[in-house]
Amino acid sequence: MQKQYDVGIVGGGIIGQSIAYQLAKEGISVLVLDSHKGGTGATSAAAGMLGANSELENNDAFFQFAKESQRHYHILRDELSELSQINIQLVDKGMYKLAMTENEAKVLKKAIEDYETLEWHTKETVLQNEPHVSDLIVGALFIPEDGHVSPTHVCAAFSKSASLLGATFKENTPVHSIKKTAANEYTLSTPQGDYLCSKVVIANGVWSGHFFKQLGLEVSMKPVKGECLSVQGDHLNLEKTLFYDHCYIVPKGDGRFVVGATMIEDDWSTTPSLGGIQSLIEKVTPMMPSITSAKLLDTWAGLRPQSDDGKPYIGQHPEDDNIYFASGHYRNGILLAPKTGTMIRDLILKRKQNDEYIHAFSLTRKLTQTTR
Amino acid sequence: MQKQYDVGIVGGGIIGQSIAYQLAKEGISVLVLDSHKGGTGATSAAAGMLGANSELENNDAFFQFAKESQRHYHILRDELSELSQINIQLVDKGMYKLAMTENEAKVLKKAIEDYETLEWHTKETVLQNEPHVSDLIVGALFIPEDGHVSPTHVCAAFSKSASLLGATFKENTPVHSIKKTAANEYTLSTPQGDYLCSKVVIANGVWSGHFFKQLGLEVSMKPVKGECLSVQGDHLNLEKTLFYDHCYIVPKGDGRFVVGATMIEDDWSTTPSLGGIQSLIEKVTPMMPSITSAKLLDTWAGLRPQSDDGKPYIGQHPEDDNIYFASGHYRNGILLAPKTGTMIRDLILKRKQNDEYIHAFSLTRKLTQTTR
Amino acid sequence: MQKQYDVGIVGGGIIGQSIAYQLAKEGISVLVLDSHKGGTGATSAAAGMLGANSELENNDAFFQFAKESQRHYHILRDELSELSQINIQLVDKGMYKLAMTENEAKVLKKAIEDYETLEWHTKETVLQNEPHVSDLIVGALFIPEDGHVSPTHVCAAFSKSASLLGATFKENTPVHSIKKTAANEYTLSTPQGDYLCSKVVIANGVWSGHFFKQLGLEVSMKPVKGECLSVQGDHLNLEKTLFYDHCYIVPKGDGRFVVGATMIEDDWSTTPSLGGIQSLIEKVTPMMPSITSAKLLDTWAGLRPQSDDGKPYIGQHPEDDNIYFASGHYRNGILLAPKTGTMIRDLILKRKQNDEYIHAFSLTRKLTQTTR
Amino acid sequence: MQKQYDVGIVGGGIIGQSIAYQLAKEGISVLVLDSHKGGTGATSAAAGMLGANSELENNDAFFQFAKESQRHYHILRDELSELSQINIQLVDKGMYKLAMTENEAKVLKKAIEDYETLEWHTKETVLQNEPHVSDLIVGALFIPEDGHVSPTHVCAAFSKSASLLGATFKENTPVHSIKKTAANEYTLSTPQGDYLCSKVVIANGVWSGHFFKQLGLEVSMKPVKGECLSVQGDHLNLEKTLFYDHCYIVPKGDGRFVVGATMIEDDWSTTPSLGGIQSLIEKVTPMMPSITSAKLLDTWAGLRPQSDDGKPYIGQHPEDDNIYFASGHYRNGILLAPKTGTMIRDLILKRKQNDEYIHAFSLTRKLTQTTR
Repeated sequence: MQKQYDVGIVGGGIIGQSIAYQLAKEGISVLVLDSHKGGTGATSAAAGMLGANSELENNDAFFQFAKESQRHYHILRDELSELSQINIQLVDKGMYKLAMTENEAKVLKKAIEDYETLEWHTKETVLQNEPHVSDLIVGALFIPEDGHVSPTHVCAAFSKSASLLGATFKENTPVHSIKKTAANEYTLSTPQGDYLCSKVVIANGVWSGHFFKQLGLEVSMKPVKGECLSVQGDHLNLEKTLFYDHCYIVPKGDGRFVVGATMIEDDWSTTPSLGGIQSLIEKVTPMMPSITSAKLLDTWAGLRPQSDDGKPYIGQHPEDDNIYFASGHYRNGILLAPKTGTMIRDLILKRKQNDEYIHAFSLTRKLTQTTR
Repeated sequence: MQKQYDVGIVGGGIIGQSIAYQLAKEGISVLVLDSHKGGTGATSAAAGMLGANSELENNDAFFQFAKESQRHYHILRDELSELSQINIQLVDKGMYKLAMTENEAKVLKKAIEDYETLEWHTKETVLQNEPHVSDLIVGALFIPEDGHVSPTHVCAAFSKSASLLGATFKENTPVHSIKKTAANEYTLSTPQGDYLCSKVVIANGVWSGHFFKQLGLEVSMKPVKGECLSVQGDHLNLEKTLFYDHCYIVPKGDGRFVVGATMIEDDWSTTPSLGGIQSLIEKVTPMMPSITSAKLLDTWAGLRPQSDDGKPYIGQHPEDDNIYFASGHYRNGILLAPKTGTMIRDLILKRKQNDEYIHAFSLTRKLTQTTR
Repeated sequence: MQKQYDVGIVGGGIIGQSIAYQLAKEGISVLVLDSHKGGTGATSAAAGMLGANSELENNDAFFQFAKESQRHYHILRDELSELSQINIQLVDKGMYKLAMTENEAKVLKKAIEDYETLEWHTKETVLQNEPHVSDLIVGALFIPEDGHVSPTHVCAAFSKSASLLGATFKENTPVHSIKKTAANEYTLSTPQGDYLCSKVVIANGVWSGHFFKQLGLEVSMKPVKGECLSVQGDHLNLEKTLFYDHCYIVPKGDGRFVVGATMIEDDWSTTPSLGGIQSLIEKVTPMMPSITSAKLLDTWAGLRPQSDDGKPYIGQHPEDDNIYFASGHYRNGILLAPKTGTMIRDLILKRKQNDEYIHAFSLTRKLTQTTR
Repeated sequence: MQKQYDVGIVGGGIIGQSIAYQLAKEGISVLVLDSHKGGTGATSAAAGMLGANSELENNDAFFQFAKESQRHYHILRDELSELSQINIQLVDKGMYKLAMTENEAKVLKKAIEDYETLEWHTKETVLQNEPHVSDLIVGALFIPEDGHVSPTHVCAAFSKSASLLGATFKENTPVHSIKKTAANEYTLSTPQGDYLCSKVVIANGVWSGHFFKQLGLEVSMKPVKGECLSVQGDHLNLEKTLFYDHCYIVPKGDGRFVVGATMIEDDWSTTPSLGGIQSLIEKVTPMMPSITSAKLLDTWAGLRPQSDDGKPYIGQHPEDDNIYFASGHYRNGILLAPKTGTMIRDLILKRKQNDEYIHAFSLTRKLTQTTR
């Protein structure tokens, strides 16, 4: 029996497809297996915010990685459009992180000291720029670099580009087990039959938990359900993304405003609950009161994959160099997808890597933490 | 130029199609004109409650008419299924009108004196029958006859049955004007051309206001927008419809629960607003707290056509016997559709009518009222 | 660690939920695990035909089983409606199996000798009853008992009734492996964690293939993709289901006509292809030419689970009494669901069974066949 | 009673909104009335091709107007994005007009003589650039300037920008009559009441026919129904739009391929028929055979407004300077929307106009023609 693929990727969401794209570009034969249709899980549920500065609070390796990934979207926009004709809908008009109290303002202002691109906007400036923002704010941190993409467009563009470069994608193909069946040969067992690969990347979000366990790792992966809604309104004027207390309003380039997201732990359902949507409305209204009269278009939910420390695992199995993980991206899957793709590519091709990143996302960092 | 149709009906919602069906059954040539696709306005937005007892509070002609209409659905179910193969989804498991205070209970109990089929159920009985009802109730009025149908199924069954009996239905055909162009000849002017009819019935809900005016009547028709939502949940157990303070939960025969409806006056938008859905959730939760964890499936809105006294106009133009009106059914369009159909049919065929009904729904009752 | 459930069922489609319902009614603790939302695979793609006579051609045990299952729907309609308030949309107006040539007529007429309820209708009779049938037919076999249900309504009714009777349903919970971990204890391993059960039923259609193999059985399960479409038309008059050369038109009780289905082997995609829909239109038009002018509403596809001999596997693992299979129902999943549910229930409860059925659906019949 | 608006626009599709946008930018008070939700008719049904060279065959005023309009989209992209944050999805990668016979090639090659930007590509070149094009072609005319936008995005961007600049938009507001009620005062009569305007623009596509007649003009407007479908496929590689015999394949920037369109005269239905979709599939398959295996996503239909000579009416009522028409754009509504907007604006503001355009689109050109 012959080896079929250089790399098998479990999971056809934005992370798996980003990796597939980077590998296919290098001429590596790639197989992507998704249990559903690909890009229909957490990827399609995400609002697509690129919020390195807004989501992350420490100037650490994780933050640097996020910033690089965010910037990489500018390159991808052109590359992917050229190959796949798909426009990833990159918008970079910045984000306002609101302060409702003086204390919140103080915390946000401190960030400016660390990052020179950030600016503090007074209430007056904010309301002049964005007249629909609540006038109960005391001011806002302006983050010029933050923006957003359309996650489904990005995922479709990665997938199509990878396909055109030779990658194979199989939908409706859940992987039940991964077994080493020879030197440099892993068998991915699925209802459609077995697939053989020299290397395996596990990138199926919250569903990866199973494989960590199956492959002998004490690493947990828990869902944090996020419920979202979208509205529309000709009079709703908003250029920048608004952010406050884990809730956001993203003005998409098609006229919709995406509002998210709740944080429900350990709930595996992918349908919004009535109570979840209620709490989301209660949270967003104070940020932008005029949103109350906007038309409600849609509601949905997705499962963020959360590791114990909230950071992703991107790296090799500690005892098997041919097994890679790329999951646990939590709230930042869209933001981190580009750099996750290039990092896994470089690991597989044994290219030079940033050691800080390797340590930050290592699977064994967790083991240390659980011993405390 | 020859006369083309005996009767032209403006409006292909449940009212217009009910009339078309009753006339087509009598061998009368009928033309139904709808500005959109028919059955897509207030008809499709309705929950389909048949709540003669729950919606109406006086034992008057209106109430009697409603009761007869409600009962007529049992005949229609069989007739329409035979002709069109469409099942109108009639369910008659009764309704609970909840009392949250002793005072509300007192008011509801008074109704029992008037209608012998009604029963008072104590809190204990209610919770035994329907364990998901809030335990903050003090009791409920049980109305055994009330139930529900699927409005879109009823409208489709009327429309298809009428078509098979020879009626003509034209979609995307807005009527701009109705003019008497000869003895017994009315010209309905539309973008598709003119249609000639001997008699005309105006049955296009809130949009009829225009024709009242065009035909010289001082009759107003205002929209009261109603926003609805539907949820689903395998553990949500509810057999009877619940009703409290204009809000209801209807357990449909497909596993969905329809929750309605807000009351927004003078708003012509047919999309729910974020604030409207929020207020609906706030209103329904106290009736059945477990609904909070149900899955939100959909949200929508429709425009109830409201006359000045909240009762429909069903009858002839005071100065032109060949012009009929059947509109202004407000919250009761589904309930009253069957009897509205037979009443207009009987007026057109000059059959014996119940005088009380003629007076109750007369177009000139309004004129009297506006002079007070 | 304690045992949690009496029976674990892998698969929440119509087969799994039918079994869950029958077991829950007996007070047995049941766990149903579905990799998606349940009822969204082959179940929701099916037209819902109950065609024991039209689909099966031999008067064997399989046929008797199908007839019993078909009749059982009449009992289920009332039981499930009482428990869940869901109407399964049972219609039993019969089916016409068309003959386009004298030879086809001869073959169909032979069936009448075997089954006394069948009738031969001449072209004239058929066209009188169903004027929209093609006048190129030479006649049709009339099968009075055949009818249809709504598969999604049946599945939802089973699921909700089972839940209300105490069964547990977990969506988004793919089972990766089934292992015997103690006497009378099986561990179902999933990304959400492990579940313990005393007995296991595998009922996840084409996806069961994986478990046959994992549990040591040489049994194959292949997908046969079926593409469908639905149309609507007020002038389309059809009471009975039409059937010709594996293609059918089912007049549903909501005014839609469901047309199916293509037969694409070894294709795991659940989206219709452009070419598939084209071939379906080409096949259905000769059966009922007026369908050409009907409105196209929707198109979809599903995967029928096909065993090597086209019959389902319903029974115990030959070497492990506590493992049951109920899959491979191919074109007949909806038809056979009721009786599959009671048969698995009776096996689990060690009730008396019809030996013929046990042999007909035995997992070891296959082993015999593969040795020839 | 006071005048309320400077200009009332009947119709909220892409034409009406383009005009509203241009007027609002000039500080003119505008009212747009749409009988439905705006942008949901022919606008949303269009594929969005900008095919001045591919659709039009003579180098006349109409062609020049179309070219200017096409180029104007580059300005609008930036303007509208700045104001509304909506990206109109402009793509300009060119179009291939295929030749399947030598004779067709000859006709196409002739066009190159007239327009220097056009190029003839041999079969080899075409297949090298677009490997999925049928190898039965003999070559193709390459039109570098032609491209496409997303019509719903353009319409939403116009509508939102106009709103933010002060325009008023009313949905669900059919205009039944337009009457001159004073000097410089027109009353637009609707079910929501009367609206007063100094000037009126009629821009509601095929539905304008009614107003031509009501306002005394012998101008006909007929629907030509167009049915479309969309497909998707990771292996479908196509950069340029393909065009052959009124049928096209447009590779949209979201990964979908839009295929259109049938030409059904005098059919007012806006739902595709089964036969219509069949004929479309039969027509597109020879252009790009691999499309057969693509996934069918959606089907829909719209009504193109066709004048007697196939050109739009853009101009003033011959006897009333304050009444403007902008309708009859037939297959070219999206292409011509920008320039129609500026032309009506300039007429209203009495700015200098291109006389050739005034004559080409004049309402009285028709009167001449009908007398021949």
